[in-house]
Amino acid sequence: MGLTITEKIIKEHLVIGQLDRGKEIGLKIDQTLTQDSTGTMAYLQFEALGIDRVKTKKSVAYIDHNLLQTGPENADDHLYIQSIAKKHGIFFSKAGNGICHQVHLERFGVPGQTLLGSDSHTPTCGGLGMLAIGAGGLDVAVAMAGGEYYITMPQIVKVELKGKLNPGVSAKDIILEVLRRYKVKGGLNKIFEYTGDGIKCLTVPERATITNMGAELGATTSIFPSDEETRSFLKAQGREKDYIRLEADDDAYYDETITIDLGKLEPLVACPHSPDNVVPVKSLDRIKVNQVAIGSCTNSSYMDLMKVANILEGKTIAENVSLVISPGSKQVLNMLAENGALAKLISAGARILESACGPCIGMGQSPNTDGVSLRTFNRNFKGRSGTNTAKVYLASPEVAAVSALVGYITSPEEYVKDMDIDMPEKFLINDNLIISPAEEEGEVEIIRGPNIKPFPKSKALEENIEGKVLIKVGDDITTDHIMPSNAKLLPYRSNIPYLSDYCLVPCDPEFPKRARKYGGGIILGGFNYGQGSSREHAALVPLYLGIKAVIAKSFARIHKQNLINNGILPLIFQNEMDFDSIDIYDELAIENILIQIEEDKIAVKNITKDEEYTLVLDITERQRNILRAGGLLNSMTKQDF
Amino acid sequence: MGLTITEKIIKEHLVIGQLDRGKEIGLKIDQTLTQDSTGTMAYLQFEALGIDRVKTKKSVAYIDHNLLQTGPENADDHLYIQSIAKKHGIFFSKAGNGICHQVHLERFGVPGQTLLGSDSHTPTCGGLGMLAIGAGGLDVAVAMAGGEYYITMPQIVKVELKGKLNPGVSAKDIILEVLRRYKVKGGLNKIFEYTGDGIKCLTVPERATITNMGAELGATTSIFPSDEETRSFLKAQGREKDYIRLEADDDAYYDETITIDLGKLEPLVACPHSPDNVVPVKSLDRIKVNQVAIGSCTNSSYMDLMKVANILEGKTIAENVSLVISPGSKQVLNMLAENGALAKLISAGARILESACGPCIGMGQSPNTDGVSLRTFNRNFKGRSGTNTAKVYLASPEVAAVSALVGYITSPEEYVKDMDIDMPEKFLINDNLIISPAEEEGEVEIIRGPNIKPFPKSKALEENIEGKVLIKVGDDITTDHIMPSNAKLLPYRSNIPYLSDYCLVPCDPEFPKRARKYGGGIILGGFNYGQGSSREHAALVPLYLGIKAVIAKSFARIHKQNLINNGILPLIFQNEMDFDSIDIYDELAIENILIQIEEDKIAVKNITKDEEYTLVLDITERQRNILRAGGLLNSMTKQDF
Repeated sequence: MGLTITEKIIKEHLVIGQLDRGKEIGLKIDQTLTQDSTGTMAYLQFEALGIDRVKTKKSVAYIDHNLLQTGPENADDHLYIQSIAKKHGIFFSKAGNGICHQVHLERFGVPGQTLLGSDSHTPTCGGLGMLAIGAGGLDVAVAMAGGEYYITMPQIVKVELKGKLNPGVSAKDIILEVLRRYKVKGGLNKIFEYTGDGIKCLTVPERATITNMGAELGATTSIFPSDEETRSFLKAQGREKDYIRLEADDDAYYDETITIDLGKLEPLVACPHSPDNVVPVKSLDRIKVNQVAIGSCTNSSYMDLMKVANILEGKTIAENVSLVISPGSKQVLNMLAENGALAKLISAGARILESACGPCIGMGQSPNTDGVSLRTFNRNFKGRSGTNTAKVYLASPEVAAVSALVGYITSPEEYVKDMDIDMPEKFLINDNLIISPAEEEGEVEIIRGPNIKPFPKSKALEENIEGKVLIKVGDDITTDHIMPSNAKLLPYRSNIPYLSDYCLVPCDPEFPKRARKYGGGIILGGFNYGQGSSREHAALVPLYLGIKAVIAKSFARIHKQNLINNGILPLIFQNEMDFDSIDIYDELAIENILIQIEEDKIAVKNITKDEEYTLVLDITERQRNILRAGGLLNSMTKQDF
Repeated sequence: MGLTITEKIIKEHLVIGQLDRGKEIGLKIDQTLTQDSTGTMAYLQFEALGIDRVKTKKSVAYIDHNLLQTGPENADDHLYIQSIAKKHGIFFSKAGNGICHQVHLERFGVPGQTLLGSDSHTPTCGGLGMLAIGAGGLDVAVAMAGGEYYITMPQIVKVELKGKLNPGVSAKDIILEVLRRYKVKGGLNKIFEYTGDGIKCLTVPERATITNMGAELGATTSIFPSDEETRSFLKAQGREKDYIRLEADDDAYYDETITIDLGKLEPLVACPHSPDNVVPVKSLDRIKVNQVAIGSCTNSSYMDLMKVANILEGKTIAENVSLVISPGSKQVLNMLAENGALAKLISAGARILESACGPCIGMGQSPNTDGVSLRTFNRNFKGRSGTNTAKVYLASPEVAAVSALVGYITSPEEYVKDMDIDMPEKFLINDNLIISPAEEEGEVEIIRGPNIKPFPKSKALEENIEGKVLIKVGDDITTDHIMPSNAKLLPYRSNIPYLSDYCLVPCDPEFPKRARKYGGGIILGGFNYGQGSSREHAALVPLYLGIKAVIAKSFARIHKQNLINNGILPLIFQNEMDFDSIDIYDELAIENILIQIEEDKIAVKNITKDEEYTLVLDITERQRNILRAGGLLNSMTKQDF
């Protein structure tokens, strides 16, 4: 039987396991990327592994998150990462060079290769036929050291795109439609493969919009074929040599198939406060907007911003609107500056922000109290914008630009009738903000600012686990809840003790104090616990606070692995009703865990209520060993690479 | 006898008093400006005055300080100011339109008119022959309401510029030379008038660099003649009708005269941590820079950035440097985007920030720990950058650009030999981010966010003043010490209770707690207490904490007025040695102040030490009345406008 694109790449990179759905496999990683908010920790962990030079084909360290720099912490982290990169064979993309995913797509991504990134939107490079997966920082550190990356061999969903998009409808609407159908939990342990005649009309950056925001499905990743469109893109980036043709075999087996008729799609919008809360723009009441924000790794490509410039040309934004635009990369910004499009944006009243993540991660541009913000981003979780009462909508650049002019959320069809923008035959190539590593490791001194604190170390699993339930939360708790990541906290990503005062505070302001009072304990969660970003801090900080286990109805993929990597047990209820029986402050006990861990089923006693529940530890033998050792780093340092 | 430029303008605007040096005069104010960090409070005070429409010829509210917006507070303040402006006849310059001083120079400043601004760098418009003075927010509110603005009729210093600047030497070096000679205290109650054949080679924006940074002398303001160069500038801004010729009479009397031979000037730099710590660039050791920051109201004009683009063209910044550029206005940014200069800056590796104050006020881009930052700004007070250990140097755009390339602080002569940049004959004029006020006051609803708190009200002067000395500080305490204004605090400028936890904390972290414990008291200061910004918060917050008097060796001009406006006594030592006799926690008492205030001399008892000192209350009868009433607002509301 034939193979899917995913299977072809996995087969080429399979080190451990087989192509059996649901079983764990170990993959060789060709490329890695980090950004600065997860990077400092990842490189501290890389240092702990004691490896001189990275063993990947290419590793790149990007600075794109902490660019506001309202204190010395960020610049210190940037210098640390710059020095680490130089020393250990990693390319360093300086602040100002752009968002990791956009730059990686432009300058480094290679069809058919594997990419592991310490950012949940790493699947962006799936847009050019790369198997690109987000992971915790430690997993990326291990991959840089030459270790495999482990996933559950996922189910593969065929997304067949038919026909052609109408004017005013864009790639963003395709992924919003997939989110409307699958919801934020629907992609767990799945890879979405896009195919069909409809993909021909999608450029690589448009495909990347879809694979990028596929992260919101909870999917392992998303991927497009590598075809003539891919070749053109790589050629225009001066990298035609990186092109290979890659597509699924005709008789490939898919676990599911869905079809989207592009011609029937209309402009969509994700309403507050979830990316899957999707409705047609036209179904909305007349919603006045205070802010329109264009950019982020989802929609900040050259084509995206050319469309925006085209819509805004010669016009002025509405009086009630603040329009902010963050170009995705120095390449994008430089081209817009050269061809006059940037002048059009400025002239219309746009505020041009740095080429960085910016408002998408709450780094600035927080809306006013109760404000409506329309954004081309990928996430609209409550409070992520920095304003807890803000109502954030997600839509395409076309919807955003038109709404900025009108002052209300507006469907763009009438404004884009004659728009005709072509992909450039040649992009402006100037990699002078990418610093190459030193030839010799010895030459480079590592620069460590005072805010860079050691990360917490976990201990080997003990005989019995006992602890109070310190918090009980509902479904879809995101890593933004567990370890908030606003402009005030992001600068402290290399300082776990500082961050620990804010752990789970959006759910319960008393949680950190309670965790300290009882010397740690257990977290109780609902479905899809830990969705959202890849940040390992959502495990490192609980570890620091003494959390021994999280018991939930289900886990998001990356977070579950991060818990295991840090020696915290990720347990799920066999009977979901048991969730209702347990209250905060209940004393739970798991006895003989070293014996129980041999099995899938774990018995836990509720001492307070004198009850017993059965929990499921749905992990592999490899993960069992990590938990026994008290985390991945402990298990790694015992062996040689 | 003939008149100076200053005297001519004052004569035209004199409402109270005469042209006698050292005596108080009341001036009619033609124009006002506010920015958002002082503006919210100024407009709250304006509302308290109960006036419907501003009575000035033109009042403009700018948004340029709080543009990072890491929480809802800033956007809320912006909306409040936008609604107030619309209602009360004030033009509103939206976020993104640029720095108040640069925009005002371009679009609104008029030779021969008076301008009062709630920002210490308001003298910028002196560059086109305007009498432009910085003041506290309440003074600006009163001026908008049609009230006079009071100053001491200043001494007038003639600064004669001779000859022509050599390549690589610029307007910035002229003002640095004046600062080298006069120091930060040297300009108190003086106005600096520039004249001589050397001014012919200076464009209006270059003149504005000089008058802008004249604020660092502690001067009332600085001013240039309005001549053909001024006419050309106004014409290029489409405002030739605003031109009048204005120059000093040949036989005008000056209190002092200094001469600067431009041909002998060389590139200068102000070393940490004061703008008057000036040395030639060439006298420095090889100083490696971590950051170069170009922009601020001092050096962010079209010409400044064209020079930078010229120097950077086709090159790449040094590996160790982060180069950030904040264009001064939308006009500047738009022109650079149209003519290709912006593309050159981006291509060389510059990070383009918003057209705003940005790093100059610590809003972002804080240097790394112990980092060296070279900036084209006007202030390098310790900690102002957001990094307490940073070493900030001030220099011209030419020095900054060349140093960014070389990686060390470098004199630019060799790099600028063939540079030839002309002023444009026509600037790009597009005022679409300036919102006109409503025709009718009634139409507009005022929008008040939850962070906008009422300002503290002072009470009428009581019989006796008693209190402990709560803090004793040295010379040159800036408003950045009294009310720090970093990225974490600036968003709270409309929330005095919140700010009060940070009052004088850079000098003594326990001060706010102590002030609360003792229910207020007295501050003891050295020379030049309150230098720096115009922020009234440096008086409002002490008022909120119960401060009744500040006793110092001398006061900076704006701060002294702010204290009086808020009913706090600004007392100076008759015998400076007495400063040494008083210690923190000493209990001081001023008895019968209502009688004593009739005289200049005030007796204060040190109850703790059983000593008595004579203090001087160097104020006018008008100011006495304000103090008696417990502040300007109390004294105003008793009378009709």
